[in-house]
Amino acid sequence: MSARRKATTQVSRLARRAGGTTAADRMVPEETPVAFSFAGTTHAVMMASPADFEDFALGFSLTEGIIATPEEIEAIEVEDHGAGIDIQIRLKDRANTRFEARRRRLAGPVGCGLCGIESIEEAMRSVDAVSASKLTLDAGDIVRSVKLLSKVQPLHTETGAVHAAGFYVPDKGIVMAREDVGRHNALDKLAGALAKAGIDGASGAVVVTSRVSVEMVQKTASIGSAFIIAVSAPTALAIRTAQEAGMTLVALVRGDDFDIFTHPDRVVCGVAKHVA
Amino acid sequence: MSARRKATTQVSRLARRAGGTTAADRMVPEETPVAFSFAGTTHAVMMASPADFEDFALGFSLTEGIIATPEEIEAIEVEDHGAGIDIQIRLKDRANTRFEARRRRLAGPVGCGLCGIESIEEAMRSVDAVSASKLTLDAGDIVRSVKLLSKVQPLHTETGAVHAAGFYVPDKGIVMAREDVGRHNALDKLAGALAKAGIDGASGAVVVTSRVSVEMVQKTASIGSAFIIAVSAPTALAIRTAQEAGMTLVALVRGDDFDIFTHPDRVVCGVAKHVA
Repeated sequence: MSARRKATTQVSRLARRAGGTTAADRMVPEETPVAFSFAGTTHAVMMASPADFEDFALGFSLTEGIIATPEEIEAIEVEDHGAGIDIQIRLKDRANTRFEARRRRLAGPVGCGLCGIESIEEAMRSVDAVSASKLTLDAGDIVRSVKLLSKVQPLHTETGAVHAAGFYVPDKGIVMAREDVGRHNALDKLAGALAKAGIDGASGAVVVTSRVSVEMVQKTASIGSAFIIAVSAPTALAIRTAQEAGMTLVALVRGDDFDIFTHPDRVVCGVAKHVA
Repeated sequence: MSARRKATTQVSRLARRAGGTTAADRMVPEETPVAFSFAGTTHAVMMASPADFEDFALGFSLTEGIIATPEEIEAIEVEDHGAGIDIQIRLKDRANTRFEARRRRLAGPVGCGLCGIESIEEAMRSVDAVSASKLTLDAGDIVRSVKLLSKVQPLHTETGAVHAAGFYVPDKGIVMAREDVGRHNALDKLAGALAKAGIDGASGAVVVTSRVSVEMVQKTASIGSAFIIAVSAPTALAIRTAQEAGMTLVALVRGDDFDIFTHPDRVVCGVAKHVA
């Protein structure tokens, strides 16, 4: 059973402008609870755009390290319960055994919780180095990747209020993009869509419209991309994590301007070549 | 034991501008895992700005409905473990009993999880109506509240990458404000700071620099404010939830322009009075 919902809704609101106040319609993004269940038990609930559920489930399973490859998933069932979407993910034998072992390890004597230190360690799980990628980009690629992503954001065009994550491959442009009210969700959906299409994460750059928190770097490393390119600013922890993972973090891309925070050696010919 | 950390860090990056590429310093916000433990077990881990931990713990406990009043907390202990911050919150007898009953109810037979439907119901918990507040604002208040908030955002001024939540009281201005890399965290820290200062949530408006998701409306209702005023756009679910709670949702405040999405009756004299 699958689920199909509208990702946007038209609402009426009072618009106060210099010329006066008028009632007028506006499109706003929908948002719904999406629960991920593994082995029959909910693992996480996210508020997300109600679209691309299979990509979301596959991408989340990959970037959270629950599966190593898409083949470890037996089935994904998406059920719409009205108040929200329940996604049941059945894992194949080995992945299921690993997941249940992890859950047993994390379950403490008083029931469901970790102690604080364990929880912090889970949040700070070490990221895979992205050294398998030999990708380099020039300044033109970086500027172009953000411009091209802006052309494939239909929900954002409609509402002005949705994040996007895209995958940029030199000479091909943005080959895949997903949108969501949550920036992590957009990146998880992208990860799932890439895996489903069999696109190697090492072959291109992750491009996001949002800020770069540490989780965005962790998820980009899971995808296997050596580049994260962002419109907004990074956190200090995101920078340290990208540095350790060997990832080039480019942020604050505004028009032709941008900042390189880590591993500038992947940006070829220095950046100066493209400067007027 | 308390913890004290820097909320921002200076980093070096390559800045590519029209005039050329130069190495230059920039301030970026810090981000650290913060684990909340109740009755000895972690309830949640958030990536947050390392500041205002006691406000965060108190506000989170209130807006998540774990406590009804600040007096239900016996003690808050903040421990810095290097990799993150562990906040141990000890509840007084009645609140502790209630919390453990809730945790037992939520713990399923296979260990720690809910089923998907229960998780969705938890995420969609009904919000308190804010009818206790008799607050009304005029258009000048709305415009002023956002302008005044922008003057009390030191972390954002330094980094350009941090959200803020403030509390606006007519004739007094922004009486309290908190910042965080996460918009929910900023609002939880504000809730805690208001409760600690004994400021009645019904006496003013919550003002946020971010988008309005349903969780922002839920937390504003917990604070008891009848207004949420936001710089960015709301989701459809946030609008429906504000409508049901009797809350006035004002968003997309840009200069003197803004949109009223719910309960415009709280904006006095229509909005037209202030239109040129």
